[in-house]
Amino acid sequence: MKNTLALNDNLSLSRIIHGYWRLRDWNLSDPELLKLIEQVLELGITSFDHADIYGNYTCEEFFGRALALKPELREQMQLISKCGIRLSTDFNPELEVKIYEYSSEYIIKQAEASLKNLGTDRLDLLLLHRPAPFFDPEEVAKAFDHLKQSGKVFNFGVSNFTPMQFDSLQSYLDMPLATNQVELSIACLEHWENENIEFFQKHKIKPMAWSPLAGGKIFKPESQREHRLHSVLKEVAAELGIEAIDQVMYAWLLKHPVGILPIVGSKHIDRIKSAVDALEIDLSLQQWYKIWIASKGEDLP
Amino acid sequence: MKNTLALNDNLSLSRIIHGYWRLRDWNLSDPELLKLIEQVLELGITSFDHADIYGNYTCEEFFGRALALKPELREQMQLISKCGIRLSTDFNPELEVKIYEYSSEYIIKQAEASLKNLGTDRLDLLLLHRPAPFFDPEEVAKAFDHLKQSGKVFNFGVSNFTPMQFDSLQSYLDMPLATNQVELSIACLEHWENENIEFFQKHKIKPMAWSPLAGGKIFKPESQREHRLHSVLKEVAAELGIEAIDQVMYAWLLKHPVGILPIVGSKHIDRIKSAVDALEIDLSLQQWYKIWIASKGEDLP
Amino acid sequence: MKNTLALNDNLSLSRIIHGYWRLRDWNLSDPELLKLIEQVLELGITSFDHADIYGNYTCEEFFGRALALKPELREQMQLISKCGIRLSTDFNPELEVKIYEYSSEYIIKQAEASLKNLGTDRLDLLLLHRPAPFFDPEEVAKAFDHLKQSGKVFNFGVSNFTPMQFDSLQSYLDMPLATNQVELSIACLEHWENENIEFFQKHKIKPMAWSPLAGGKIFKPESQREHRLHSVLKEVAAELGIEAIDQVMYAWLLKHPVGILPIVGSKHIDRIKSAVDALEIDLSLQQWYKIWIASKGEDLP
Repeated sequence: MKNTLALNDNLSLSRIIHGYWRLRDWNLSDPELLKLIEQVLELGITSFDHADIYGNYTCEEFFGRALALKPELREQMQLISKCGIRLSTDFNPELEVKIYEYSSEYIIKQAEASLKNLGTDRLDLLLLHRPAPFFDPEEVAKAFDHLKQSGKVFNFGVSNFTPMQFDSLQSYLDMPLATNQVELSIACLEHWENENIEFFQKHKIKPMAWSPLAGGKIFKPESQREHRLHSVLKEVAAELGIEAIDQVMYAWLLKHPVGILPIVGSKHIDRIKSAVDALEIDLSLQQWYKIWIASKGEDLP
Repeated sequence: MKNTLALNDNLSLSRIIHGYWRLRDWNLSDPELLKLIEQVLELGITSFDHADIYGNYTCEEFFGRALALKPELREQMQLISKCGIRLSTDFNPELEVKIYEYSSEYIIKQAEASLKNLGTDRLDLLLLHRPAPFFDPEEVAKAFDHLKQSGKVFNFGVSNFTPMQFDSLQSYLDMPLATNQVELSIACLEHWENENIEFFQKHKIKPMAWSPLAGGKIFKPESQREHRLHSVLKEVAAELGIEAIDQVMYAWLLKHPVGILPIVGSKHIDRIKSAVDALEIDLSLQQWYKIWIASKGEDLP
Repeated sequence: MKNTLALNDNLSLSRIIHGYWRLRDWNLSDPELLKLIEQVLELGITSFDHADIYGNYTCEEFFGRALALKPELREQMQLISKCGIRLSTDFNPELEVKIYEYSSEYIIKQAEASLKNLGTDRLDLLLLHRPAPFFDPEEVAKAFDHLKQSGKVFNFGVSNFTPMQFDSLQSYLDMPLATNQVELSIACLEHWENENIEFFQKHKIKPMAWSPLAGGKIFKPESQREHRLHSVLKEVAAELGIEAIDQVMYAWLLKHPVGILPIVGSKHIDRIKSAVDALEIDLSLQQWYKIWIASKGEDLP
């Protein structure tokens, strides 16, 4: 399987994406982070997933400091960020509660902050982080137009949107939304159940998958369902002659015809390589369904 | 905030609408009702919401008798009615159960009855009262065409429809449906959950809101949720320096970018004025979300 | 009511369809089955519903052997089949679990197997048996194109699809999908609840109804709901001056404006005739709703 996927005529991402929501937990010095970035690029992973709020608004700056040590790497990578969530932390002392904001002014402000923090002059892709009950698509369209025309953001998308939410926003935009980043894994079938998968296929949207390993809970199974999943992964891994069940979890996502781009959130290069190696694994249809059935807890109807 | 809102090129309503479903409970003489209508008009409320069945099919006639005392007021107002529900009351002795009927013949018959009872020669807006499991969109299209071409009804809409139901009926009509009247309030988030809000935004539909004060239950809170809502409304009202929490409830609806038209169902002119005054209140985004969170009982994801 | 219904310009089916999923249980010799087919045709039923998997992949062959005794009957009938489910039985010894397969190759293989088993050179209609979590609409489009151009299948449709699933697949096809075969009966309101009914009306799709008598459970009511339904059916039958409550169940489906084609799965010609006779019954709107209300267990809102 190829390690790049075109989301549209202007944007290709690496099939496996490196995600930085836990960057602060990694405790890396700037040179150590630079080294990790270089190793990741060597694996063919060229797309890097950020958000303004990761690490209480600090992860992008950490990444930017490492990148500044070797700025020419920017040309080899696609930088993705998100905005719209406003945390009720010391960063926003005026907020009593977490809110979402999608005013034109705020979207532009946060995109520009991401540029500054990442140390780059453009984002390849900017996502709206979550759908919001208070949402004005005209404001979003205005922000996207400005960011596009000023050359600050090349492509736009959303995250965690339903089909209707996607469709409604799309109707206000001249350009097609490039992707919808959603939670997809063998333990999270929500976007099959809400029919996002079919919606993506209809509109030829390739979804990015966050939490593709289900937060790690299957590695140490507790619930009956986690035990079922752990057991079937072990079985399929044995059939394929491989050790690592995380590879089977990635392969299950990669096998799906919709074209899923998993985001790997690890600092360990061997774990990241495991995801890339999964591109070479081809599950049989029966293996794919055995995992589906273990997740659902019942046979197909 | 302006006190008129254009639903389409042909129809503007006042942002606050006066509703008559409880007219019979008000115990007003014809001159008293006329006086109320005049006071309401003086507040800038020009749109009046009726339905054939209100007061067991009698409210429209009461309104018509008051209007007949000063028929020139008709020129200053928009009259809205609804049809499709057939009550199993003495008015329909042949019915053992309440049913819905949307045959072409029946829709025309009820629209004409509303004209006669209201004492007018045209309705500005006719709504189908509820979606029905037995429904023939071709019959509806036939009725709408006839009523439009005969000059009896100028605009058509629906009430309580889902996106799919709206979309399906729309596909049979030449003219765009003007609105969808649904229950919207800080205590009824159903049309956020079924994604009508996003559907409205996509199609630039301005929804009318019935029961915008949630039937009054928040004024005398009983459940935990009602207590949460009462408490946050008090808090926001204090921040805004106002007394009446009903104004905050209206302001919360009016703030939403979709463009909601609340229907006020009171006979008390000071309560009605409270809704109009809410047009001047501008909640902060944080206030809007604090009310949302109190209603949901949990923080944003 | 006419006993034919056009699904599109190229395909008309009889309004009542004869279904063969229980053919193996009928224990008929080839001449007995031929006789049944001839009697069914004499009733005006010309459409015959099959699937590759019925009777563990054997029903089509049984039907084909009977038809071979009088092959000229083929010209009087429309043959419908389905594919996509792969049973984990002796027929597929390599499968540990039931799976769905919609690869181009597999769809073509199964359609050709149906042709061979039924002893015919073309299917009038081929349906995808169930929506699948692993589904590639491009593969389906390729298979449909091949089967259409080779003259092996004239029309295509689906079964048990939701609106989104239908819509997504349709967007990959040049030809309109002819139908969606779904479970519809007075005891199965699922496709009202998921809004398939409105979707069908929007797209002028006539659904085929499987299990139109709800699997027979209402004839021997056990649950409260079954007792309610049995009782209202008896009441309506008495009002109509007929004996058989199965006729009321068919008449309830046939009355609906969407245009439902019930599939009768009986070997008893009098039971099959009962369905055809239901074409002459016209329920009142009140009768239709009394049955709806009995099924829901509550009055209309």
